[in-house]
Amino acid sequence: MKKKPLILVSNDDGITAKGIATLVEIVSELGEVVVVAPNKPQSGMGHAITIHEPLKIYRSTIFPHLKEVYEASGTPADCVKLAKHYVLHGNAPDLVVSGINHGSNTSISILYSGTMSAAIEGAIEGIPAIGFSLCDYGADADFSHTKPYIKKIIENVLEKGLPKGTALNVNIPAKHSHAAIKGIKICRQAKAYWKEEFDERTDPYNRKYLWLTGKFVNNDHGEDTDEWAIANGYVSIVPCVFDLTAHHFISTMNEWGM
Amino acid sequence: MKKKPLILVSNDDGITAKGIATLVEIVSELGEVVVVAPNKPQSGMGHAITIHEPLKIYRSTIFPHLKEVYEASGTPADCVKLAKHYVLHGNAPDLVVSGINHGSNTSISILYSGTMSAAIEGAIEGIPAIGFSLCDYGADADFSHTKPYIKKIIENVLEKGLPKGTALNVNIPAKHSHAAIKGIKICRQAKAYWKEEFDERTDPYNRKYLWLTGKFVNNDHGEDTDEWAIANGYVSIVPCVFDLTAHHFISTMNEWGM
Repeated sequence: MKKKPLILVSNDDGITAKGIATLVEIVSELGEVVVVAPNKPQSGMGHAITIHEPLKIYRSTIFPHLKEVYEASGTPADCVKLAKHYVLHGNAPDLVVSGINHGSNTSISILYSGTMSAAIEGAIEGIPAIGFSLCDYGADADFSHTKPYIKKIIENVLEKGLPKGTALNVNIPAKHSHAAIKGIKICRQAKAYWKEEFDERTDPYNRKYLWLTGKFVNNDHGEDTDEWAIANGYVSIVPCVFDLTAHHFISTMNEWGM
Repeated sequence: MKKKPLILVSNDDGITAKGIATLVEIVSELGEVVVVAPNKPQSGMGHAITIHEPLKIYRSTIFPHLKEVYEASGTPADCVKLAKHYVLHGNAPDLVVSGINHGSNTSISILYSGTMSAAIEGAIEGIPAIGFSLCDYGADADFSHTKPYIKKIIENVLEKGLPKGTALNVNIPAKHSHAAIKGIKICRQAKAYWKEEFDERTDPYNRKYLWLTGKFVNNDHGEDTDEWAIANGYVSIVPCVFDLTAHHFISTMNEWGM
């Protein structure tokens, strides 16, 4: 009998979120599962790591059918590092999955996303990795329709592998946004951005404070983008790398003659 | 007479760091300067943004020759957003510069770097942007040799521009690492990584805690990499984009037939 794959689960909404419970349920059917997740919400943490303070990690009993479940004080990227180098003593899992995030991580949101930072940290460690997000920010969002898609994507990745240093950014339409999901589209990251607005308020001591808010602006109408896929009822998958080099611009800069 | 360019300065070591003082000194000769920088060190913050708590921003008198200097409670990416949308009321500066970081941000460190997240946030906003780092972690590092290089790079970018959505990751050898800097190399991001180790300790109450540490491992010996440039006495410039799509892998994934 083939050995069961070892699957590491993390997220950014914290270990008590509904999304990670759904993901744990799905992967428990597919392999041996280890969970290392933040002990509090870490949304918007991007690829932050914790270097100015120490980390704490404790066993958790939140998923009683699993032996290896931990909550940690750090960021999603910290959790993946802790899992591989502390919990698993340097042994790499066969797959890292992160999520299911409560909210979309399409387009530029990948840079701000804690969910995707856990997946990309996996890719940096040379492990196939997938971040899953549901386009519904509700704490009580309905994840039931995501299961067959997540299972199919994980099974494909376990069977076929991913090129070294590649992570998948998977976004799934909210339950009631369409009659039914139409299928899966392999996409590129849409060229969209967040137009910030600051909501200025005054505290009871007459000091000003600001909430970061914003509107998502998408002027990229390409039908090969993740935004198009989600808007049209498809699950989007963007394969991602962590080489940010603008290779096409190197020769131009060399002509500057600095 | 040509209007002076408006230059926004931020960093991740905090507004009191020696590196930002050096950068402010350099850009004060090149344009009109606005500073919005974190009120405490934010190294390793990656592209984190602050959404779970409000932000505070105050005027600072740390650079008395400048009118518009602010310290903010958030991350480097927050500072760039605050600068454009709050301090400058939606008007974009002509250039965003970040740093000078106390420590290298070559290779994979770009993902963890608060310095580069400020620059990349500028690029996302459509503003030419440059992050500067000195390969010396000392709080009292010697930045004197960096000035002519930083000035030359900024002057070139102000004159020639950058393609929309592009930021430069500039790393400069430490003062005494070589006899003299040999010049500037336009590079790609080296395929290196941090091999984590956790330093486990016990607090006075017998609770365990862990410090994230690690060794930088570079098996990429290409002479076109930022790591090679720094190791050989050159200033490295990696032009960067924020599209993480693995474009080359899309067609393969389409063949999976999911």
